[in-house]
Amino acid sequence: MPDFSLLSKNIDKHIRLDEEEKALFFSYLEPASVKKRKTLLRAGEVCRYSTFVVDGALKSFSVDEQSNEHVISFAVPGWWIADMYSLLSQKPAILTIEAIADAEILMLPRVKQELLYEKVPKFERFFRILTENALVANQQRIINNLTLTAEERYLHFIDKYRFVLECAPLHNVASYLGMTPEFLSKIRRKLAGKDV
Amino acid sequence: MPDFSLLSKNIDKHIRLDEEEKALFFSYLEPASVKKRKTLLRAGEVCRYSTFVVDGALKSFSVDEQSNEHVISFAVPGWWIADMYSLLSQKPAILTIEAIADAEILMLPRVKQELLYEKVPKFERFFRILTENALVANQQRIINNLTLTAEERYLHFIDKYRFVLECAPLHNVASYLGMTPEFLSKIRRKLAGKDV
Repeated sequence: MPDFSLLSKNIDKHIRLDEEEKALFFSYLEPASVKKRKTLLRAGEVCRYSTFVVDGALKSFSVDEQSNEHVISFAVPGWWIADMYSLLSQKPAILTIEAIADAEILMLPRVKQELLYEKVPKFERFFRILTENALVANQQRIINNLTLTAEERYLHFIDKYRFVLECAPLHNVASYLGMTPEFLSKIRRKLAGKDV
Repeated sequence: MPDFSLLSKNIDKHIRLDEEEKALFFSYLEPASVKKRKTLLRAGEVCRYSTFVVDGALKSFSVDEQSNEHVISFAVPGWWIADMYSLLSQKPAILTIEAIADAEILMLPRVKQELLYEKVPKFERFFRILTENALVANQQRIINNLTLTAEERYLHFIDKYRFVLECAPLHNVASYLGMTPEFLSKIRRKLAGKDV
């Protein structure tokens, strides 16, 4: 039996559902256990799922023409992840999604998500709020990238996402922050001297 | 009588409303004519409106500690703009919103937006879809910033947002793209030589 408790708490924060409505939602989810380094979506494929992380961690990244990997997002327990562009347009994904630790996930197929909106319109609200929160986080990241120094961006990251550091490799964090692993190490050494 | 036709078309793309529901929505909107350089929201104030652009253009920007302005987004006819962080949290805004050309706008107060969700739940769907589209555009921007050269970012911008160039000052576009106006001019001269 997959563990729906975290997702259930997540839902209760935003909408009120009766047991039957929740059961319907849960019946649409495809649970999976994935090993570290497992690829869930490959750039070029069409993204067909929104994925909720129950345990472990995932990352999404894009690869540039020089084969450099750029981490776009992390997903830790309680978070959703997808290539939103591909999921919404059903065109080939730009991102690859991969496990950075052994993970337990719940996958919601796009078709079932649409069905859910039809059958239980309250889910429009749930996903509207989730998407708003994701948009705010993205806008904050764009603002930080434009206005903060590398050190400030790192401090902001550990302030908000310290738990990501516990499972994400440091070179992935450096990539997410748009700096080289060497530069991030330099910042961390400097801050360690300051006891931050 | 304010012009609701563009907004009406915008709505029809995503949800079906009867005339009464539309009229209710329109009755919640506060129309305004604003002059170029007029400030609609100042960083530090609380954002209380989602603003729809009927004509003209707005920009949002943040100012760093060195008083440099960083353009975060543009809004041209058919687009919505807000400091989403402040609008959702009702905490002080990080962004300033200003007209970059004389503009006709329709302002939806946050309280009325919440009332709308209650009275016509179909608007949950409308704003869910709008927010998803905004999220995709934001993610694309983050990916571009991490993976493309300055020249490629500019080409991507004119490919998708050529109409913004018609009303936004070039130094605002440079700021949006994260480069100096001088560097953008250099790229434009180079591309002009190539007839792009």
